[in-house]
Parts: sequence; structure tokens; C-alpha cells
Amino acid sequence: MDRRLCDVSASARLAGPDEGIGRDELALATRNHGLPLEALRYDVTPPGLHYVLTHYDIPYVPGDESWELTIGGRVRRPMSFEPADLRAYPAVTLRVTLECAGNGRALLTPRPVSQPWLVEAVGTAEWTGVPLRLLLADAGVEDGAVDVVFTGADHGVERGVEQDYQRALPVDVAVGEESDVLVAYGMNGAPLPPQHGLPLRLVVPGWYGMAHVKWLRDITVTDRPFTGFQQSVAYRLRRHPEEEGEPVTRIAPRALLVPPGFPDFMSRARVVRPGTLTLEGRAWSGRAPVTRVEVSTDGGLGWGEAEVEPAGTHRWAWGRWRFAWAATPGDHVLTARATDAEGHTQPLEQPWNRGGFANNLVQRVPVVCLEPDD
Amino acid sequence: MDRRLCDVSASARLAGPDEGIGRDELALATRNHGLPLEALRYDVTPPGLHYVLTHYDIPYVPGDESWELTIGGRVRRPMSFEPADLRAYPAVTLRVTLECAGNGRALLTPRPVSQPWLVEAVGTAEWTGVPLRLLLADAGVEDGAVDVVFTGADHGVERGVEQDYQRALPVDVAVGEESDVLVAYGMNGAPLPPQHGLPLRLVVPGWYGMAHVKWLRDITVTDRPFTGFQQSVAYRLRRHPEEEGEPVTRIAPRALLVPPGFPDFMSRARVVRPGTLTLEGRAWSGRAPVTRVEVSTDGGLGWGEAEVEPAGTHRWAWGRWRFAWAATPGDHVLTARATDAEGHTQPLEQPWNRGGFANNLVQRVPVVCLEPDD
Repeated sequence: MDRRLCDVSASARLAGPDEGIGRDELALATRNHGLPLEALRYDVTPPGLHYVLTHYDIPYVPGDESWELTIGGRVRRPMSFEPADLRAYPAVTLRVTLECAGNGRALLTPRPVSQPWLVEAVGTAEWTGVPLRLLLADAGVEDGAVDVVFTGADHGVERGVEQDYQRALPVDVAVGEESDVLVAYGMNGAPLPPQHGLPLRLVVPGWYGMAHVKWLRDITVTDRPFTGFQQSVAYRLRRHPEEEGEPVTRIAPRALLVPPGFPDFMSRARVVRPGTLTLEGRAWSGRAPVTRVEVSTDGGLGWGEAEVEPAGTHRWAWGRWRFAWAATPGDHVLTARATDAEGHTQPLEQPWNRGGFANNLVQRVPVVCLEPDD
Repeated sequence: MDRRLCDVSASARLAGPDEGIGRDELALATRNHGLPLEALRYDVTPPGLHYVLTHYDIPYVPGDESWELTIGGRVRRPMSFEPADLRAYPAVTLRVTLECAGNGRALLTPRPVSQPWLVEAVGTAEWTGVPLRLLLADAGVEDGAVDVVFTGADHGVERGVEQDYQRALPVDVAVGEESDVLVAYGMNGAPLPPQHGLPLRLVVPGWYGMAHVKWLRDITVTDRPFTGFQQSVAYRLRRHPEEEGEPVTRIAPRALLVPPGFPDFMSRARVVRPGTLTLEGRAWSGRAPVTRVEVSTDGGLGWGEAEVEPAGTHRWAWGRWRFAWAATPGDHVLTARATDAEGHTQPLEQPWNRGGFANNLVQRVPVVCLEPDD
């Protein structure tokens, strides 16, 4: 590698004790954005409020006529599609809650230096496209296939490695009869917005965002495990740099609440007046439906059961929950904890790894309740 | 004021030397967002890429049937509108470049602690609505009117003052025959997205964003100058806290360039290969059309003239400029400077005030050009 590329592309690191957010982390935070938490009220997140994380630049695609998606590797019939060709397949629409694997990272101690999310890297959309398994059935996956590799058009350098963004899925996740993986061309009934992958992206329900490759250009079936940067270097759960680490896959359960009352502009602290309030929020898990949400209004000392709306038909979308709270003057810390049907739940102490991935520590919302006559 | 409100709502302050971005600034940066600079390529910014700054919460407005806009104060015929009533007026569409008054704040020394923008708090949209002067003509502005006060539905507390967001315009800006001020209900041919003011907002072409009141609920004509928080406390140019300060009004000229090449994920440094590149960008001013853009590729030592596209019919929108650059291996700093027809230009040293407002210091884009064989 050129010496100069090393100069601009440093190794991963942890922030020092009391080290504030740096210029590099801020440059990511000003271009990527989370869901403003009051927008948890929408069943389906308006596109501009859905969280966005782009590793490199958003490709400029003024029209999709010249876009080509290729399917190759260990298939019997390599194929090539323009976006319009995909609309000839039966359209499938799925409501999916998508969360960044790094959500919560900036709250960790020590803090992994990367995109500095608090808890807001989430959103829910209705994605329309073609089931990946239908495309791969037409291409004819050969025996001995192991991984399916997806390549996006976004190009950059990361820790010294120049790359197009690439991720893989195990072949059974990609082509199994139960597979809900989509090659999507629509979001909330409209074409994909540029920042969400115009003209084509992958949607992998239940998996963290890194798997949902945007600006999708190529699908290659391989007969050995994919070892690209985003699979083997990034997005691994490691406590020490030399570990191989476990891969980041499905979304761990999380509940978030709509911060009640109104905010202070600068501190974002919440202010309410005394009385009974209905706290509400959303909860999701990529592993199994959420079956229980507990709420604490005293920072985790005592817990009560929230009313969880029945899951309904949207297996991959967040569900709503509600909890009545009698607010009294003083300082309070609200928190909520989701548990899914497989028994996965949220920890009350931080789970920590060097990437700050899949960290589903419970949210804490400090609230000030004013005196009644104020 | 209640003691507890003081606890959550601090005075304005400046960051200390070497003080990193704090948790409070980060909480603003994760919910508000800028224009990813590669999106300067679009004439009209897709809504989810346009910068957003919300002081308090985004109001939840699932349908606009129950929304009421009132016009009162020093008018002969107080009026009330539902959003649908406004569509009975002739629709006007204007292409407008909108910039936050705090753009560039996080690059200042010392840094005012607030929304920590670098240079990306800008966007261009086509806003559709009714000229404010037509509504006020129907209401009949009385003699002696001084200000027109606009009230939004977003509610919060700021430096101890609980408030709905309010700003005023001088009556001649609001109702003059040349006035382009709109009460807008559409953005880029669709209803306003929630974060841009659904269902109604003010658009004040040429003025910084704080004047474009979102979630507009009331318009009141007054016979004395408006002295609300956002007019007299915030959004003033002051070097010392005790000064009255000048009001922030029209957008100062600025040029931004599309960062060339590709980025490093973490440092956001730009990487190019040797050869002739066409640098491109946008330039705008809220005072007069931009007539000149100069570019430097050596950090401001030497300057060349960029080719500026003719202004065309969109008086209030940014214009495109281009500049050919022969990139050679090594480190470079690119910068561009806009000048408008009234001679306003961009400073090469930071202009500073305690709010970090109307700061149009030139952008600096460090670029690494690799060796030819890399």
C-alpha cells in the first residue's frame, strides 16, 4: 500500500478516558443521522427520519437506465439485470425494522472510535422488491456453494484497505425456502432514496444494517467462505484485537421509549408536568418476536409490565408498547427492557466489544417533573 | 422559573481549549443532520439529504385535517385556515437554497457550544405554497404595523425560557410587492416531510434557516418590534455577552466543493489518483447573485477563476461552478471562495461571534493524491 494511504487511514482505536468526541467522529455524525426519538410514534418511519449510515460516499445515480446488477460465480446461468427487469418478477413488500450494528457505541466505556451513535440508529420501512431466492433459483446455484457475496457501488478506504463495500450471507440464509431476503427497489411505495441505496439494495430482515448492501451491483456465489474486510476484519465481536471474533449477525432485542414531555434545546433533557402520562415506545428483536417489555421509572430499581401490542402480520417490524406513569415532582430516570420469545433480553450493564457492535444496553431517559404550579 | 428548569437548561457557553465535542452537542448531531457533500451534485436536494435543524421535538401530525393557521393582531379581518384552504390560492413554486445560521460553528476557535455543524448545513428544495403577502392583503394589515410574528408548534425550553418557537420579520419584508416569502405546504412536489414542517412552514428566500418557521400555527401583526427569545436573545451577532448585538438576517456568500475522489471511512480524508480532475461545487448568497468563484489547490496561496454557470431563472438557488485541476502526487488543500454582485465575499480568516452565526469562512478540503502506480 502507498505510504500516503496509510497516512489518511488509521487503525481502529478506543477513545482515552474523558476524551471528547473528535473531529473525525463529528464528521460522521453530521452526515449520517439517527431517528429523532419522537418519530418512534410512526408505525412506518418517513424516509428522511429513518437512520442512515453510509461507509463511503453516496453514489450519484441520476437515472437507473445504465445500472446493471450481475449474478455470477457458482451458478449455472450467470445473469444480468437492469432495475426495470426486476419489476417483471412478482413484487413482495415487507415491513422491516433496521438497526445499525453500532447503535449505542458512543455510550460505551471505553468508547470505540467510529460512528458515534447514542441509541437512535434505527428505523422501520416498507421495502418492495424481488425475493433473492427467486433470482438465485433462476441462476441455478451449483452444489458446494457456501456463501453469497454482495457488492455495492460505494467505494472508499478503511484501515488502509481500498474497497467497494462487500458483505456475504451464508447460502442457506440467502436461498432457503423460508428466506425473506429481498433485492429491493422501493421504500415506502416510492423508489429508493439515494441514501437508502437507489436504485437497488439488499434487505435482510432480522439482521443488523451492515448486511443490507446498498447500491447493489453484483451477487457472486462462492464455494468457500468470504473473507473480505467487512466480513472478517470489521463487524466481529472481539474484546482483544488479536481475536478472530464472532461475526455480527441478527439484531439483539431492544426497547426504546418516546421521550415524554418537551426537551431543553441544548441538554436534550426532558421536562414534564405532574400527572398520569402514558409512556409509549417500540421494541424489536431480529431473533424472535418480542413478548415482554418491562419499564422502570426509578432508574432500574423497580420494574412494571408494559402492555405490548400483539405482533400482528409484520414479523420483522417493531411493535408498540405502552405504560402508565404517575409523574411526581422531582428527577426520574425512565428505562425499558425488551425480551423476545427465545428468551433473549437486554442487559442492565454494558456488553462491551472493541467495535461497539450489537450492544443492546437499556436506554436511560432522565426526566425532570416540575412542581404543579409551574 | 422553577428551580428544576434551571437545572436542565443552562446558559450559552464557549468550549474550553482542546475540549472535545460533548454528549450534549453529540445528541444534537445524531438527530439533526447536514447535506452529505457529494449530494451537492443534485440541482435540487432529495428531502432526506437536505440539512435539518429542529430546536425541540418534531411535532407528530398524522393528518392535517385538524391543523389551523390563524392570522391576527393588527389586521382588519382576522382569519383562520386549514391547510386545504391554502390550496385554493394560486400555487407558487420557488427553488430556494436554505442554510443554517450556525453552519461552520464547530470549526470556530473558541467553539460556541450548540449544534456542532462543520460546513454541511445547507440544501436546495422547490417549495410550493401561497405568497404571504396575498394572505396578509386579504387580512388587511393596519397602519402602524411594524413586525409580523410567526409561531410554530414545536415546544421546548432554551436557556431557561419555555417557549413555542417564534420568529418575526419586518413588515416590509413580509408584505412588500417584491416579497417572495411563502407559506409553503409542498417540498419537491410532495407534501412537506415531518422534519421540514408538515403541514405548513414559512419560506423566506435569502434568509438563514431560523427565519423559515416550521409547523406554522399563527401569524400575528404587531405595532412594536418583536422581542421574543429567538429574536432578541438567540440569533444575534455578539462578541461579548452583554452586547445587544446585530440581528442575523440574510445568508452570506459561500462556495462548497464536492470532495473529489473517494473517502477514508473514519478520517473522511479524500484520496485521488494523478491526472486532470474537474472540481465542481455550488455557490450561493442571500444578498445578491454569485458572480465569481475562485479556487485554490494549495491552501490559499494561489487562486484561479472557476467557471460559474449563469444564474438562470432561480434567483434564490445555488449555482454550479467548475474548475479543472491537474492533481499530482502529494498532499493538497482545496478551497473555494464565492463573491456576490454586491461585492460580499468569504473571509480567509474566521469571523467570530459568540453564537457562531453567519460564519462563512472558506471550506478547506485536504486531499491525498497517490503515486501513479498505486
